[in-house]
Amino acid sequence: MPDTRHPLDPDDWGEFRALAHRVLDDMIAYLEDVRERPVWQPFPDAARQALEVGLSENGIGLEAAYEELQRNILPYAIGNVHPRFWGWVRGTGTPGGILAELITGTLNTSAWGGQQAAPYVEAQVLRWLATMLGYPESASGLLVSGCSMANLVALAVARDAMSGADATEDGLRALRRQPVLYGSTETHSSIEKAVGLLGMGRRSLRRIGVDADFRIDIAALEHAIANDRAAGLQPIAVIGNAGTVNTGAVDDLAALALLCQRERLWLHVDGAFGALAALVPSLRPMVAGMEQADSLAFDLHKWLHIPYGVGCVFICDAPLHERPFHAAASYLEPLERGAAAGPHDFSRLGPELSRRFRALKVWMALRAHGTASFAEAIERNVAQARALAGRLRAASWAQVLAPVSLNVVCFRYVQPGLTDRELDQLNRRILIALQERGIAVPSATVIGGKFAIRVAIANHRSGEEDFDALLAGVEAIGKELAPIRA
Amino acid sequence: MPDTRHPLDPDDWGEFRALAHRVLDDMIAYLEDVRERPVWQPFPDAARQALEVGLSENGIGLEAAYEELQRNILPYAIGNVHPRFWGWVRGTGTPGGILAELITGTLNTSAWGGQQAAPYVEAQVLRWLATMLGYPESASGLLVSGCSMANLVALAVARDAMSGADATEDGLRALRRQPVLYGSTETHSSIEKAVGLLGMGRRSLRRIGVDADFRIDIAALEHAIANDRAAGLQPIAVIGNAGTVNTGAVDDLAALALLCQRERLWLHVDGAFGALAALVPSLRPMVAGMEQADSLAFDLHKWLHIPYGVGCVFICDAPLHERPFHAAASYLEPLERGAAAGPHDFSRLGPELSRRFRALKVWMALRAHGTASFAEAIERNVAQARALAGRLRAASWAQVLAPVSLNVVCFRYVQPGLTDRELDQLNRRILIALQERGIAVPSATVIGGKFAIRVAIANHRSGEEDFDALLAGVEAIGKELAPIRA
Repeated sequence: MPDTRHPLDPDDWGEFRALAHRVLDDMIAYLEDVRERPVWQPFPDAARQALEVGLSENGIGLEAAYEELQRNILPYAIGNVHPRFWGWVRGTGTPGGILAELITGTLNTSAWGGQQAAPYVEAQVLRWLATMLGYPESASGLLVSGCSMANLVALAVARDAMSGADATEDGLRALRRQPVLYGSTETHSSIEKAVGLLGMGRRSLRRIGVDADFRIDIAALEHAIANDRAAGLQPIAVIGNAGTVNTGAVDDLAALALLCQRERLWLHVDGAFGALAALVPSLRPMVAGMEQADSLAFDLHKWLHIPYGVGCVFICDAPLHERPFHAAASYLEPLERGAAAGPHDFSRLGPELSRRFRALKVWMALRAHGTASFAEAIERNVAQARALAGRLRAASWAQVLAPVSLNVVCFRYVQPGLTDRELDQLNRRILIALQERGIAVPSATVIGGKFAIRVAIANHRSGEEDFDALLAGVEAIGKELAPIRA
Repeated sequence: MPDTRHPLDPDDWGEFRALAHRVLDDMIAYLEDVRERPVWQPFPDAARQALEVGLSENGIGLEAAYEELQRNILPYAIGNVHPRFWGWVRGTGTPGGILAELITGTLNTSAWGGQQAAPYVEAQVLRWLATMLGYPESASGLLVSGCSMANLVALAVARDAMSGADATEDGLRALRRQPVLYGSTETHSSIEKAVGLLGMGRRSLRRIGVDADFRIDIAALEHAIANDRAAGLQPIAVIGNAGTVNTGAVDDLAALALLCQRERLWLHVDGAFGALAALVPSLRPMVAGMEQADSLAFDLHKWLHIPYGVGCVFICDAPLHERPFHAAASYLEPLERGAAAGPHDFSRLGPELSRRFRALKVWMALRAHGTASFAEAIERNVAQARALAGRLRAASWAQVLAPVSLNVVCFRYVQPGLTDRELDQLNRRILIALQERGIAVPSATVIGGKFAIRVAIANHRSGEEDFDALLAGVEAIGKELAPIRA
């Protein structure tokens, strides 16, 4: 009877159960023993080639697939679960998070809305997140795949709210004047991508200079707005940064909020990781003004350590949120009762209709751990960054290249007599050696034209011994690789 | 020593391990016993209210959080893992998929690129998917959160490729002529949302009428294009549907490909679920022409049963893909070796920078099960839809409201003497009762002004007995609820 076969369910559930428990044990061991492994290792050609198999009609079975995965994939992640990973800005994840992902995959629901727990859990999580960040609870919110998407959603709403016509319905060519947006030179590339995608043209994003602390120059911003107005353009929005990606700088958000109120501009805050500083009483003043933003975007897979990928966007003036996203479809009309009923329809608040139940892992993390654990981890990372910068400033072989605002330390190894170009080259080699020897994974950036080793600490597993290892590693490798000058 | 405490890792790994194995057993039982449970049940007020707790500084611990989840969340999903769920178009998921999600959450990597397995796995999965669908392997591809996002990416590329200026850089106001796009009246709402988001204006999406099989009327399309050209507008793209959401209709994609070649228009195929028909030799002719599309979007969490959320977009002319998405950032410059090296940078192909490692679950599913299992499940669903339609056509109490092309059956319960409005109301009540009694979850739509019960079969667990239960349920409830006419 072929009609009752379920070729994608196991023939033998007992066998599946045994494999599943083995996988789970391996995954727990992967986290428990993480400190014993190198933080990163090159992805070998043999593993890469082993992946290059043709598509096959007949599968090799779950167990054999898992064995290939163990051999060729599992050892070769980028390393952000490790205590000595400080590259880009990546969260660490948590053991609780892996259970949440297991449950999410089992439920396998789509969280667009309807009469089911998922949209209610998301609504509750959004209220919690607003409370955590001191953002108005009356705001409209949405969980998205990450902050790039959150920025896109927020700027779509800003475009439609501020451009003086129905941009979504009629298109940008119907606008009388060209919209213009403003952000500092440190603004994240996802903002530029969003502005371009939304049809406003990347050139309409003005890059305003920064002060010595890498914060937007407010006077220069005012000047640019006035100039654009005089030229017949239409300033619509300012992007404030809460934690720039290069140095972790936080713009003066209170001053930006005042300016935007005065100039009747939309204030969007990109708080990818920095917004979470609001969780910590001692750090909250740094992001003061964020609560006055018209929209706010931030990630939960960075400094909140929720497994990838989940970010959040808030729109203060809730009714504006759905203007770029609303859609009617007869197959989606809610009924008065049944599975399709209920007050939520998150598809009206963002580009997605089918939506992974991202809220579950956030709910479980906040419910299980409470806010204090996360606040403590964040506060400790900031203290670690300051301590690291202090030790680097005291070291004869190091130069700190940017002020440390939050959790990002940019520095380089120095040796007298070397030119800036030689130092750039030397520090590239030091960084690569740090990674290849499995000592630590910082990443790189360029600060004032100088190549910088960038340590972005968003890691709840890092301890003092890990920074000892970093400093010892950089100094030893620097001495080993530096050219000898007579 | 506060510096070495890890507040988000367990104090006691043994305790965590015990909880984790209990969760895993529960999740496996959830799938193994799925048939014993109602397909859906209302989300009770008590569970909803239990979720409405304030944010707490101190967590209740993982175990207590899991108990709340078991009580208030787990029983109240929308039901698409159940054999009698045929609402909207939802995939079923697989037991193997839950292991893949567990592993993905443990690795917790960001799959943007770099020297790690993730981007290589994604590249391999993309090659497999192209092969499966008969799409050129030289195409550029990207995994995204779902087909709405895939449509957005494809239309962004189409906009930039076809609008005659650098729309991303200069904005839509720099275009000499208004771009116009075409799709049938059955085109999915995500297309309209994408066109609006991209700044082209939803009004520039022309809705072309359909034939009796709900396929786009090619003559009307040609006429609309000529009219728009004569009016000084700039036709840029046609959207072809491979499986419309209302009835599962497939446009004549080969005819659209010819037309687009002749008219020099971009052909985008929205194959959300229907594209997967290409996996089945007997169904492949239905989507012939799809392989000639300039871009192709489809979901993997629907008819391929990968856990939510993952879809895919292909752009045939690979160099065009990154035009709306490329971005330069000094903190992302690749180094010659180390963690940041490697040929892949998926952030240049879509709006996301941080990206969940979605490819892993696709890789594991295709490797473990092979293509034949999926093809078999798809082919069976189409056979089930045809058989169901046949039985409905033979039943005195039923009326099939649309031709069955693939896997969607739209019908209503009928009783002589009732007006269309009365039948609409009666069928709404039948549908709600089917759901509330836990018998089955079809969804609803409107066909030719008539309320339809819509059975969209993308379910590898459905067997003949499930359709028996549906038919018996509709007939019995219909007789129970229908007004008695003398």
